[in-house]
Amino acid sequence: MAVAFLQHPFMSQAALEHFDSAALVDAMRHFELALADSEERHGVLPAGTGETLRQHLAGHVFDLEDLENGTALGGNVAIPFVRQAKAALPEDLRSHFHFAATSQDVLDSALMLLSQRRLPTLLTLVQRNLSALAALMDRHRDTAMIGRTLMQQALPITFGIRAAQWALQLDEARARLEKIVTTGLPLQFGGPVGIHNGLEDGLAIMETLAASLGLRAPLLPWHTDRQPIHALITALDALAVAADKIALDVALLAQSEIGELSEPAGDGVGGSSSMAHKRNPVRCALIRTATRHVHGHTATVINAASQPLERGLGEWHSEWAPLIESQQLLEGALLQLAVLLEGLEVHDEAMAARLDALGVAARHDRDSSHRQIDRVLAHLAR
Amino acid sequence: MAVAFLQHPFMSQAALEHFDSAALVDAMRHFELALADSEERHGVLPAGTGETLRQHLAGHVFDLEDLENGTALGGNVAIPFVRQAKAALPEDLRSHFHFAATSQDVLDSALMLLSQRRLPTLLTLVQRNLSALAALMDRHRDTAMIGRTLMQQALPITFGIRAAQWALQLDEARARLEKIVTTGLPLQFGGPVGIHNGLEDGLAIMETLAASLGLRAPLLPWHTDRQPIHALITALDALAVAADKIALDVALLAQSEIGELSEPAGDGVGGSSSMAHKRNPVRCALIRTATRHVHGHTATVINAASQPLERGLGEWHSEWAPLIESQQLLEGALLQLAVLLEGLEVHDEAMAARLDALGVAARHDRDSSHRQIDRVLAHLAR
Amino acid sequence: MAVAFLQHPFMSQAALEHFDSAALVDAMRHFELALADSEERHGVLPAGTGETLRQHLAGHVFDLEDLENGTALGGNVAIPFVRQAKAALPEDLRSHFHFAATSQDVLDSALMLLSQRRLPTLLTLVQRNLSALAALMDRHRDTAMIGRTLMQQALPITFGIRAAQWALQLDEARARLEKIVTTGLPLQFGGPVGIHNGLEDGLAIMETLAASLGLRAPLLPWHTDRQPIHALITALDALAVAADKIALDVALLAQSEIGELSEPAGDGVGGSSSMAHKRNPVRCALIRTATRHVHGHTATVINAASQPLERGLGEWHSEWAPLIESQQLLEGALLQLAVLLEGLEVHDEAMAARLDALGVAARHDRDSSHRQIDRVLAHLAR
Amino acid sequence: MAVAFLQHPFMSQAALEHFDSAALVDAMRHFELALADSEERHGVLPAGTGETLRQHLAGHVFDLEDLENGTALGGNVAIPFVRQAKAALPEDLRSHFHFAATSQDVLDSALMLLSQRRLPTLLTLVQRNLSALAALMDRHRDTAMIGRTLMQQALPITFGIRAAQWALQLDEARARLEKIVTTGLPLQFGGPVGIHNGLEDGLAIMETLAASLGLRAPLLPWHTDRQPIHALITALDALAVAADKIALDVALLAQSEIGELSEPAGDGVGGSSSMAHKRNPVRCALIRTATRHVHGHTATVINAASQPLERGLGEWHSEWAPLIESQQLLEGALLQLAVLLEGLEVHDEAMAARLDALGVAARHDRDSSHRQIDRVLAHLAR
Repeated sequence: MAVAFLQHPFMSQAALEHFDSAALVDAMRHFELALADSEERHGVLPAGTGETLRQHLAGHVFDLEDLENGTALGGNVAIPFVRQAKAALPEDLRSHFHFAATSQDVLDSALMLLSQRRLPTLLTLVQRNLSALAALMDRHRDTAMIGRTLMQQALPITFGIRAAQWALQLDEARARLEKIVTTGLPLQFGGPVGIHNGLEDGLAIMETLAASLGLRAPLLPWHTDRQPIHALITALDALAVAADKIALDVALLAQSEIGELSEPAGDGVGGSSSMAHKRNPVRCALIRTATRHVHGHTATVINAASQPLERGLGEWHSEWAPLIESQQLLEGALLQLAVLLEGLEVHDEAMAARLDALGVAARHDRDSSHRQIDRVLAHLAR
Repeated sequence: MAVAFLQHPFMSQAALEHFDSAALVDAMRHFELALADSEERHGVLPAGTGETLRQHLAGHVFDLEDLENGTALGGNVAIPFVRQAKAALPEDLRSHFHFAATSQDVLDSALMLLSQRRLPTLLTLVQRNLSALAALMDRHRDTAMIGRTLMQQALPITFGIRAAQWALQLDEARARLEKIVTTGLPLQFGGPVGIHNGLEDGLAIMETLAASLGLRAPLLPWHTDRQPIHALITALDALAVAADKIALDVALLAQSEIGELSEPAGDGVGGSSSMAHKRNPVRCALIRTATRHVHGHTATVINAASQPLERGLGEWHSEWAPLIESQQLLEGALLQLAVLLEGLEVHDEAMAARLDALGVAARHDRDSSHRQIDRVLAHLAR
Repeated sequence: MAVAFLQHPFMSQAALEHFDSAALVDAMRHFELALADSEERHGVLPAGTGETLRQHLAGHVFDLEDLENGTALGGNVAIPFVRQAKAALPEDLRSHFHFAATSQDVLDSALMLLSQRRLPTLLTLVQRNLSALAALMDRHRDTAMIGRTLMQQALPITFGIRAAQWALQLDEARARLEKIVTTGLPLQFGGPVGIHNGLEDGLAIMETLAASLGLRAPLLPWHTDRQPIHALITALDALAVAADKIALDVALLAQSEIGELSEPAGDGVGGSSSMAHKRNPVRCALIRTATRHVHGHTATVINAASQPLERGLGEWHSEWAPLIESQQLLEGALLQLAVLLEGLEVHDEAMAARLDALGVAARHDRDSSHRQIDRVLAHLAR
Repeated sequence: MAVAFLQHPFMSQAALEHFDSAALVDAMRHFELALADSEERHGVLPAGTGETLRQHLAGHVFDLEDLENGTALGGNVAIPFVRQAKAALPEDLRSHFHFAATSQDVLDSALMLLSQRRLPTLLTLVQRNLSALAALMDRHRDTAMIGRTLMQQALPITFGIRAAQWALQLDEARARLEKIVTTGLPLQFGGPVGIHNGLEDGLAIMETLAASLGLRAPLLPWHTDRQPIHALITALDALAVAADKIALDVALLAQSEIGELSEPAGDGVGGSSSMAHKRNPVRCALIRTATRHVHGHTATVINAASQPLERGLGEWHSEWAPLIESQQLLEGALLQLAVLLEGLEVHDEAMAARLDALGVAARHDRDSSHRQIDRVLAHLAR
């Protein structure tokens, strides 16, 4: 495994497994069998083809190493996958497998399938963070603290307000991704050049297939219309920003000299290899690393989103790893963030002492804070 | 004027003027006067204050050079703007100007105001492009051409289908921006640290002010919640991708050896300083330059979107130019694209000759094409 | 002027002027006249051509607005520039102007010429910053302060050491740029497709021309070999990182609760429009804005550096503004940084009090610090 | 293994192994043992300590899974690594292990060590590509072809010239990386805050250690001076640009309608899952994918290069994967490129036929081409 220590600790382990090689192969097989079913239903393949293919392939063990090597030959894993699958079929069935489909159909759809299944977990994680934030807002509606602009003390706010601000932007980013998940990631099925060459009514098959896979039926195949990918990666990036903002603020407020927040203690996180006494905001560092990587991946995908004619020449291939890793990284970040927020130590006495020392009163502003917090709580509770 | 030749030709001239210094000053003045009206309405300022301020300031000529110099001192133009405005007021009125507001309120709101007014022009331009594309789809529903994957000849499509694909992704990107414009860009009004310090009910004033300015009233002030900016810049970037994809395909299909498309002739565009006979796809180059700059700006904004505590320290400031320039560039790109598409020369005889030479039939696929084109036309006509 | 307030305050005013439209026109004229001289010297143009052209064009006033409009038609300013220049010449001289050159020759060379003349100013600014840092290192070699890792107090260092670290990385970045400037930015002269079509010995003319312009003669024309641009923009970006690092640290150490550093006082910089008592680290914000923009520009240029065949189609055009603006921004950042470092308030008593409170001794480490500081001072003094 | 199919095929398998988890552990152990030797040599540790530690640890098998889990707790792998190593030591030796070092010392140095050992392979690959290009230049010095600007036919060049242009930019990028490798990647050794707390003369130990590891002794520890990382990643990115440019041109010239180049045939690369007759420029796609990823990684590293005070909070951690993956990707790209160039099919008859059809003569230019080619060949042969 390559550079595992440098990358995996910033990702969710469950998400790493969800998208592993075997899962991708399963998703591609799932696509191909459902495609045969759909083509059969529309009279394109003989009755019973789907079931017969399923009998031969459902339990077939693909040779993952050969798939990896084959990817280097053809540029994508669908080519050796189709080759292996056909080799496992009786000769007369082979032409019915992957019928009227192209590599991009299989791989795009498999990636959408895996993502469509996994993004609800991401959204649940966001909700877990929002619940933790709601609890903080409620508990700290009267915890006055100094607000800081350009990292200088300015005027009082409350910590409840800070949490409400965090919650609101996390919720805005959530809404963006949720809309995408609810609308559904699109099936890709267009055949070699996107117009279902060789099929009487490819659009109808596309719709049957989408319904059967639980994916959205797009208006048209989107082989070089990467708007769905652009919308998805930038929505993930928006969540990365929201997570990063919280981690940044916690790290700033946990500075030794400020000491108004601490990461949760007692779970072995945050030790130093050279200074035993030190408590490091390690979760913040983990979160901020994952989010920086998501930004880098977003840049890659955005710069590859305009793809030539009927198939990208590197542009399409460039999307895969960034798209999947961004989900794994973001899930990792949100897991860390949930633990951080659920166990966040809020040092209200330090906050109060600082305000006392500054001699600033905060009554009116507290009323303002209450109103703002209640508004966000009501919004989150819809 | 700095590097005008290197930048302005890729922008819309009208958009350049829309966002010029004087316009920004007007928008800031508009914000401040509407703020005074709103505060007066809520009993925070004495009756008549708004009108009196308006009398003094409506015709006031601000010193733009001093504003520019003052920006370097305070980090943003709101500071010298407020100073100049106060200097133009009788002393007893000064404390009523910019009351309970902070620099970020003025500048963010002014930028949102200018953008909210200008984005409909951008959307109209998109519609103009969609109309041009609909005409191409209709006219070329039977114009068969070879489809190309990985830039190799593959199987036949029609040019109508290519145009439909272009239209669909432009429309998807349009929908994303339109939703933002229809929902409304948000007013920013939160005072020094975002909780309306010194006001009894800042949220109510915020709502009155938003309504009066034609901006959306946000749930909370969003001084360091840059989700609205992230959503806006990435929606602009999606449009840049859609425009770039068309320009890329046109440039590829206009290659001398392919010759299936040409940019509109006869308007002096596309000459060469060294080869008189040459017709360059200059509009494609202009479009692709603008879209590349939008990508760079998007990277800047995304990387600055997580901002510390109650005010960014450089992160906020980093958003301004990229956000405005992206609109100016995108408008420029869409203007070029409209002219390009409206006058696009489609060499159907070259397309047909190529298919003939390849000996590929295209009947079934033409049916498929019709269905796809009709579907997109119906979608665009909603 | 567009969005001047949003951009120019982060730039050096002198650099803005150095690269303005008139300067670019002058540089293009300078290239063309020197080209004619060189071609004359090599017997390609009749004796006296250069001087005659100079008589007609040296004082010619170009129509800047027409140049800007013409750029939109041809994609680059060289085309209308050559047209205007030819129109100002007697008919028999016209074919001698811009002889065997192409737009990219003129524009690339003009941009290199302007940059080659300006980069020494940037390097001088770096030296000014290094001098300020050397003074700080020397003055504060015994100013003990707490070191902070992951923004937590760790073990003592000295402020002299912090300054030495700043100086060293600024110097490393300086060395990278200085090497480029000393080696010389390259002349571009290759004619329409880079092989001096129509010239007996284009390489010889290229060398004569380079020498006459004070540019480096490249091995070959580099029309689509953008390695020189990549090396330059990433070297500028390295300087941006070094400046940003200092501004980041100053902003952190100037936080109200830390108070170990302050930006220079008394020059009107750092006021707040809403809180009169507040001292904002405005120079840090200005610097960090400029450096973020440089990063965005670098992303644009890097992503456009691979350019098709013998001329980019948008890729080349995308370089211009980022390359020039990065110099203007970086100069702006380094000017601010110089003022900041020269007037930096170091609150050694606050540093000492903090160490006392922590009860940490720093004797050995002070010896270590001395050694490190002396080493860097010696290095800078080479 | 996560998303292996989506990522590994674009990388060199050998480079994947070179940087795998076990190799990183070995490099960290190597650092620690060499550190003990050096400290012993300077009298900081008792005589024989290094050898005793070596006896206990040389054959020790680290628990990789525990290291991965431990990384998530402490933020970097050095923490659990040091813990495991100490647990494998007799109690009295433990305090001598990792003496006066910090996590960043171990990890930065291990990454530099692995890179310093691997980069020569990358440079050898570049040389292999340069040799292939030199052969093409020589063989095709008289292979006339049309030059294309803005992807339009312009004037004749030769294919030898195109190859010379490719070679020159690859060589420029090579020189940049080679200088870094020859100068040597720097050892990192500074202790907790970079001033060798607890050591009489840390700088001397640093130098001994660097010599023993074959790394460059830096002037100072560079814990938050990331200039070496910035220089390295941007040099890798320059090579990515050079490789990408060649792949872009080959893909353009291999278009069905142009047919002047083909990727090497006969090795199973370039098949299509839906169209048996098709020859896809798969190596170009693989190369262009790898290079796009390198650009994304470069953006991540550049944006993280300014790191706070004495240790980054996420910024440092963000560098690891991009830095290592960029080497793995670039090696993959250069391997593909070497095979592509060594077997490149140059269809000179197609090139000639096109020029004939255009009726353009190319005599003078051929002389020019020879001169340019000879110049580059001489340059490469230095």
